[in-house]
Amino acid sequence: MNPSKTAFEHRLRVRYGETDQMGVAHHSAYILYMEEARTRLLAHLGSAYSDFERAGLGLPVRRVNVRYRAALRFEDELLVRPKVTRLGGASVTFTYEMVRASDGELVASGITELACVRLSPGGLVPVPLPGDLRALLERAAP
Amino acid sequence: MNPSKTAFEHRLRVRYGETDQMGVAHHSAYILYMEEARTRLLAHLGSAYSDFERAGLGLPVRRVNVRYRAALRFEDELLVRPKVTRLGGASVTFTYEMVRASDGELVASGITELACVRLSPGGLVPVPLPGDLRALLERAAP
Amino acid sequence: MNPSKTAFEHRLRVRYGETDQMGVAHHSAYILYMEEARTRLLAHLGSAYSDFERAGLGLPVRRVNVRYRAALRFEDELLVRPKVTRLGGASVTFTYEMVRASDGELVASGITELACVRLSPGGLVPVPLPGDLRALLERAAP
Amino acid sequence: MNPSKTAFEHRLRVRYGETDQMGVAHHSAYILYMEEARTRLLAHLGSAYSDFERAGLGLPVRRVNVRYRAALRFEDELLVRPKVTRLGGASVTFTYEMVRASDGELVASGITELACVRLSPGGLVPVPLPGDLRALLERAAP
Repeated sequence: MNPSKTAFEHRLRVRYGETDQMGVAHHSAYILYMEEARTRLLAHLGSAYSDFERAGLGLPVRRVNVRYRAALRFEDELLVRPKVTRLGGASVTFTYEMVRASDGELVASGITELACVRLSPGGLVPVPLPGDLRALLERAAP
Repeated sequence: MNPSKTAFEHRLRVRYGETDQMGVAHHSAYILYMEEARTRLLAHLGSAYSDFERAGLGLPVRRVNVRYRAALRFEDELLVRPKVTRLGGASVTFTYEMVRASDGELVASGITELACVRLSPGGLVPVPLPGDLRALLERAAP
Repeated sequence: MNPSKTAFEHRLRVRYGETDQMGVAHHSAYILYMEEARTRLLAHLGSAYSDFERAGLGLPVRRVNVRYRAALRFEDELLVRPKVTRLGGASVTFTYEMVRASDGELVASGITELACVRLSPGGLVPVPLPGDLRALLERAAP
Repeated sequence: MNPSKTAFEHRLRVRYGETDQMGVAHHSAYILYMEEARTRLLAHLGSAYSDFERAGLGLPVRRVNVRYRAALRFEDELLVRPKVTRLGGASVTFTYEMVRASDGELVASGITELACVRLSPGGLVPVPLPGDLRALLERAAP
């Protein structure tokens, strides 16, 4: 049991262009926040997602769920805490806590399920997760 | 029973800027597609969402789920079919079928749950759905 | 002299997610509006931009200028009128008028200069405009 | 003459969702990069843009020019260097150098001209730059 496994968090700040006329971060922005956090988690674990794609593989999102609990405003700092909560044969599921940095309030939580595919000219072909990626993702599981 | 109730669909086309380096429409774009479809549905039923906000009310998204089944490409035409599947006291749930126009393939399906709020300077305050909006939304329920 | 040359216009509607907390369409959205209009112009002239890329060529944007004159609001309809105003050996320049449909007000005008490149694994390599694309673009020049 | 005046730079990283199918950061993303950099510059100088808006004022963009010189890729780090190059009675012009962090290459340069307005229910009304904002912006001029 390694508590540092769950310690990763990505810090970002709400951009003006991400707000909408309700005066809050638009709900689609959180999709980008989760994506950025999981690519930073992979980089933190030692594997750039861009290298993964250069090897002809991809991790398209197959499912996304977000539960919005409180509003984020322009210039708010957000802490996104991704972790791997399921590792399938050809897929991986991340869950995320999104916490406002100023007061620690949980503003949203999310889940993304990603499929492992080969990027072929004809399209995206499902393939098993490569062993090294699987080993790396296991280190992000609590 | 009125079959025309479920007939509404919104047609759009994938923008170049919505693609990502995997060569497909980025998964966050579907959030905008669903939002556009439900605002067009409201307009179709006779109520501009912008009027609703001018009256000091809002419908922020509280929950979003999307299941991605097939890839959309640049310039693909998409048919988004929103309908109201749950009408709570102070919330409304829409579900969406997203179908590629060229071949009728279901590329994604989604759910959004929206809260009804008063837009006050201090924040977003939950309030019951106004009667006229409720009546209108009932017409979008199958 | 063919007056129909300048007749093309693309109609679109401001999305909620494109507004910002100032209550207007965010200035970055116009970049997508111009891009969508020029790809629709190419399609109108008989050449899908996606075919062009499938042939291994691309038209990355080398320069963009936008002058914002009035605000666009959520659900406003916009008419974007692109035309080719300069055709170089390996580049093409489009200019755009963006007019609010409801009252004909010019809300913005823009210029984009695109380079013609070969999409190679190592990067984007400048190449002359192919003859058929050049012929097609000439038909979009007033 | 204070050399620290020109020292501000904002560091960011290209998000996956900002790439397009050409495999590079989409040209509209740079608009957000410049905006983020100038709001961080204002914060660095001691004035949050959000406070400015809470006082009922806004700085909508009136003109934007970008010259793209080289491609940015997913996960590239970018340094954005904004400075004030013109301070009018009711407007301010920022110019930006955007440099790839890994090799110092100038990937883009840009200009944005912002108008000072009062945010009134009826629209955006031009007003002179308040004295304290003007004083602050002068410190960002080389």
